Amino acid sequence: MLNLPNKVTIIEVGPRDGMQNEKNFVPTEIKKRFITKLRNAGVKEMELTSFVSPKWVPQMADAAEIAADCLAEHTRNIVLAPNRKGIDRVYSTHCNAVAVFVGVSNSFNLKNINKTTRDSLKELRPVIHELKEKNYFVRACISTAFYCPYEGKISEAETLKLCREFVEAGVDELSVADTIGMAAPNEAYSLFAKLKEQFHHTLLTAHFHDTRRLGLANILASLQAGIDRFDTSAGGLGGCPFAPGASGNTATEDVVYMLRRMGIETGIDLDQLMEAVEVVRPHLSRQIDSGYYRLLAHV
Amino acid sequence: MLNLPNKVTIIEVGPRDGMQNEKNFVPTEIKKRFITKLRNAGVKEMELTSFVSPKWVPQMADAAEIAADCLAEHTRNIVLAPNRKGIDRVYSTHCNAVAVFVGVSNSFNLKNINKTTRDSLKELRPVIHELKEKNYFVRACISTAFYCPYEGKISEAETLKLCREFVEAGVDELSVADTIGMAAPNEAYSLFAKLKEQFHHTLLTAHFHDTRRLGLANILASLQAGIDRFDTSAGGLGGCPFAPGASGNTATEDVVYMLRRMGIETGIDLDQLMEAVEVVRPHLSRQIDSGYYRLLAHV
Repeated sequence: MLNLPNKVTIIEVGPRDGMQNEKNFVPTEIKKRFITKLRNAGVKEMELTSFVSPKWVPQMADAAEIAADCLAEHTRNIVLAPNRKGIDRVYSTHCNAVAVFVGVSNSFNLKNINKTTRDSLKELRPVIHELKEKNYFVRACISTAFYCPYEGKISEAETLKLCREFVEAGVDELSVADTIGMAAPNEAYSLFAKLKEQFHHTLLTAHFHDTRRLGLANILASLQAGIDRFDTSAGGLGGCPFAPGASGNTATEDVVYMLRRMGIETGIDLDQLMEAVEVVRPHLSRQIDSGYYRLLAHV
Repeated sequence: MLNLPNKVTIIEVGPRDGMQNEKNFVPTEIKKRFITKLRNAGVKEMELTSFVSPKWVPQMADAAEIAADCLAEHTRNIVLAPNRKGIDRVYSTHCNAVAVFVGVSNSFNLKNINKTTRDSLKELRPVIHELKEKNYFVRACISTAFYCPYEGKISEAETLKLCREFVEAGVDELSVADTIGMAAPNEAYSLFAKLKEQFHHTLLTAHFHDTRRLGLANILASLQAGIDRFDTSAGGLGGCPFAPGASGNTATEDVVYMLRRMGIETGIDLDQLMEAVEVVRPHLSRQIDSGYYRLLAHV
């Protein structure tokens, strides 16, 4: 038999990673309803928003309001903070989890946050230490872990080395991302099997994009490597702005559907999940393209 | 590591299975160019057409012309023949391979060809014997091997039993199909592992639909079960007329792309394959929906 877990945890990234790539501002009330509906559907860990500069990402101008109004008990309320300034804004909220972000690829990191990967790590080390002292859950989003739009293939050794540095810095979770949706299932299996072997006390999460429609196959391969946590985005929102024509994150509904059909529990109700998607759908600049949505809509 | 083969054989079903579900008649010259381009791309086994009644499937009214003009040496030129009348038409061609068709589900078989599964088998046994005596390659397309739109889940035992009867009747190949695109990867793995275990001297081919976007994940699971032959359709054409809103067969380009990225050879050139898709695209009643096409087209 295939080596598969009984249970999988979905980390919903639609409200942050998904929204962030939407050109038109989605009204704050819609975002809040989206988050509420996702919670009602059974999501227990969610990236709510990002404390980036609203000059750079106008979509996140309402981050403080979202972070203030969308917290829930017994759930992981994650906000992304790209730098020290963002972290200070986190302290003014009641969020219990912080995501920090770094690219394995130096070129990508420079383009994305104007720092080398080394400088990011150097800046983040004391921040992570401080967050842990204050009892925050710390999630490190490791982007371009497989491929970079500028540097091409990223070596496993390089990704593993950076992951180790974050584990040693004290993070609770590594979210290891195929940012531009280039990874193949054998690459997913190989990297995640090694991560699983090396890091026993860190939550390991896989983050795939469906750019080349390999999202579900990559998840199947990662499950076999022992991974039971996946970042997904309701409606398949999001996607990397540096990859034109790219689809977004692997859609939560497609992943939940596949897992349910395989007898793997996620705790997420598909009907309620699709209600959440319906809340944001009219406000999006693009069509929902998930397999499950298209099946329901007879597209 | 994942248990994967080095090489995979693609059986292109676009010109038959794909076309058969197109409402508007695609000009015969276009079909011929499609087939030629697919061959140029490297396809070695292909379902060319079907000797069904043109009253039932007007799209196949040009079957005799296609079968006469589209043969190639050193390739498997497959024509489908649903009954004795179709077989007699095959004899008037130089095709070297015949596909016969049966549904595991009795209800599906009745709806599809107005016979019970048992009656189909009874009629086909002497036909297969005769075809083998005449040195034809015989392929048995076993449909509804996982799920039936009328009967729901089909038991593995039932599918395995019917497969055994066809193997005993003397077929060279079993093409075992998830006709309505309902199978989950663990189901695909389970059935194909058993087929592989039971039938050592029969070519075993998996046929998936991407209806619920599980096509590639199912192929990944089947590869691990030891399957190295897949029916696919260029452009993802086709699909079951009894499953409204369903996408078609798993697209050849998506499968070839995934396999290539995994280092698995198919002998098919993606650029030339997409040229073949471009030949038929303007004549189709639906949009091409494969991941690879959408990526190239920045849809």
